Amino acid sequence: MSPSVALQLPFETLGWDEQGLWFLDQTKLPQEQTLFRPQGLPDLIDAIQRMVVRGAPALGCAAAYGLVYACTLVQQDEDMSLSLETTKDLAEALWRSRPTAVNLGVGLKHVILTAKGLPAEHWQKPQAVIEALLSAAKNFHHDDRSRCQALGEQGLALLQDGQRILTHCNAGALATGGIGTALAPIHLAASRGMKLEVYADETRPLRQGARLTAWEMVQSGIPVHVLPDSAAGSLLASGRIDLVFVGSDRIAANGDVANKIGTYPLAVLAARHQVPFYVLAPATTVDPACAEGNLIPIEQRSATELLGVDGAKGALAHHPAFDVTPADLVTGIVLEDAIYQPGSEAWAQKVASLGA
Amino acid sequence: MSPSVALQLPFETLGWDEQGLWFLDQTKLPQEQTLFRPQGLPDLIDAIQRMVVRGAPALGCAAAYGLVYACTLVQQDEDMSLSLETTKDLAEALWRSRPTAVNLGVGLKHVILTAKGLPAEHWQKPQAVIEALLSAAKNFHHDDRSRCQALGEQGLALLQDGQRILTHCNAGALATGGIGTALAPIHLAASRGMKLEVYADETRPLRQGARLTAWEMVQSGIPVHVLPDSAAGSLLASGRIDLVFVGSDRIAANGDVANKIGTYPLAVLAARHQVPFYVLAPATTVDPACAEGNLIPIEQRSATELLGVDGAKGALAHHPAFDVTPADLVTGIVLEDAIYQPGSEAWAQKVASLGA
Repeated sequence: MSPSVALQLPFETLGWDEQGLWFLDQTKLPQEQTLFRPQGLPDLIDAIQRMVVRGAPALGCAAAYGLVYACTLVQQDEDMSLSLETTKDLAEALWRSRPTAVNLGVGLKHVILTAKGLPAEHWQKPQAVIEALLSAAKNFHHDDRSRCQALGEQGLALLQDGQRILTHCNAGALATGGIGTALAPIHLAASRGMKLEVYADETRPLRQGARLTAWEMVQSGIPVHVLPDSAAGSLLASGRIDLVFVGSDRIAANGDVANKIGTYPLAVLAARHQVPFYVLAPATTVDPACAEGNLIPIEQRSATELLGVDGAKGALAHHPAFDVTPADLVTGIVLEDAIYQPGSEAWAQKVASLGA
Repeated sequence: MSPSVALQLPFETLGWDEQGLWFLDQTKLPQEQTLFRPQGLPDLIDAIQRMVVRGAPALGCAAAYGLVYACTLVQQDEDMSLSLETTKDLAEALWRSRPTAVNLGVGLKHVILTAKGLPAEHWQKPQAVIEALLSAAKNFHHDDRSRCQALGEQGLALLQDGQRILTHCNAGALATGGIGTALAPIHLAASRGMKLEVYADETRPLRQGARLTAWEMVQSGIPVHVLPDSAAGSLLASGRIDLVFVGSDRIAANGDVANKIGTYPLAVLAARHQVPFYVLAPATTVDPACAEGNLIPIEQRSATELLGVDGAKGALAHHPAFDVTPADLVTGIVLEDAIYQPGSEAWAQKVASLGA
């Protein structure tokens, strides 16, 4: 076992090659494994909105690379010239594509900071600007990879040969620029010869579990069972699950966890059946300014997405995107540097350090 | 208010007319309101397995009529002759179509008992046999209608104006030969001017909630909100639900309840948030010979039904049709004659009387 070697999966979520920016097209998975390459800025924005790339950390990387891509378009346009102002305008346009995705802004900010730091004369050489911004985006992506690897190493300490792990939605490699968050330890464990089985909640209505988590596990050769979200209760009661691993969209200072709708019932059922329930997320997910979970705004998604073509006409929809799991149901919060127990002194200190 | 007048809804689930057996095709609802008429015994069995007709009490009626239908096929076949033995064989074939559905057997048994009671010379006149068996099936259907009405009257006592009721799957008129089980009191309340709102779990993978319960509520003019199964947890936590009403496929002697997968997590969450959890079912659902829930066999459904065209290739499926809710999570079991608390002396006496 060599924790210092970063795991490379047989697929990547996004990147930049000689032809420029590409995303693994997640709207085509799992049936087709094709790369999306944007054909102009509106096409890139449309791809982000259609969730060709999704997952908070992956969106950060996509936005960083996306801004560089947008700058190359300006550079190649004879009628335009690349400046700090146009770069900021392009960032603004990308930010508006999915304004609720905080990480989109984090990725853009990283590249903009680099742009701001360039000496004025640099802007006379657009190619040099592009190179500097691309280098910033690649660093951002590299940092995300490192965070995933570190999360994986932390979570790996919780795993033992033969265990069966239940997960929800897709907090995997496909949601990040690296090997994932909740699924990172599982990919790592498999790469080191550990035998595990994964139970993946289907995750209605977009089926990220059945489509993405299951595909990801198959790529890593890990046996995966898809289940209806409603079957997790009796599965936990049956004693066949050793651990629950989920990701998070936002963690409040008190350890309450906002995540994909359906996480809260899993936590309640795991507690009832004494199954440890872990949340795995980079420290950037912790919001020290948010005291507790009920302060986290919950996005309501469209009725159409839930009811579809075969829902009864005249029915309303109750369709929240997230729920909040109270800290007392969380066995541990796995961050890059350690595993924290919500309510512990160590957690309080960690939150304070993040707020500083 | 006139409790003696049975409520007639604007649709019916199944019946027998001049052309013979028909089911309202529930695989086509809510887009199309069409009748299914079986084209042979395999087609009938296939329809039961595909859930063209579904729901425990409706399956009882479908089986009773279905056995008569199967007998007409034998009667019309020159190479076969209708006898008590062939009738029993046909019943056996129908019974194997969905072995967890105890009511299927009840409906079959009712017709078989009539067949057994026929004088030997009666079997020389197949048409007379068919008429006798059809009359038995119609009586069975009539009794189911009466049971639904009685359940509705019992459950109505639990309802108050302005309440919001959460339900799972479809334990409605579409699941019975009458006005439903869990939804019977709601239809009755609406017909008597009470204002209620229903929250219907989508109920993956066949979406009986989004397709059938929602459709049924719209037919009766009752406001209905469809939610993903995974959203019931945070909805119950929000305090917006006053009661949970569900049906049952089988109730053990100790009051453990087998019902559609996803019922158990609802019961756990309702208990956690002090929301009363009621099971409404005809007494025929109670199985005095089954001591407790873990003795109830749980049907596993196909991977294809869950994974569909967009599930990842190579993934397995964990796809049970039912789960078991322990009696201690059940506030009350509503039968036709009274509301019982599992574990009470009254319940024990009721179960004993059913076993006699």
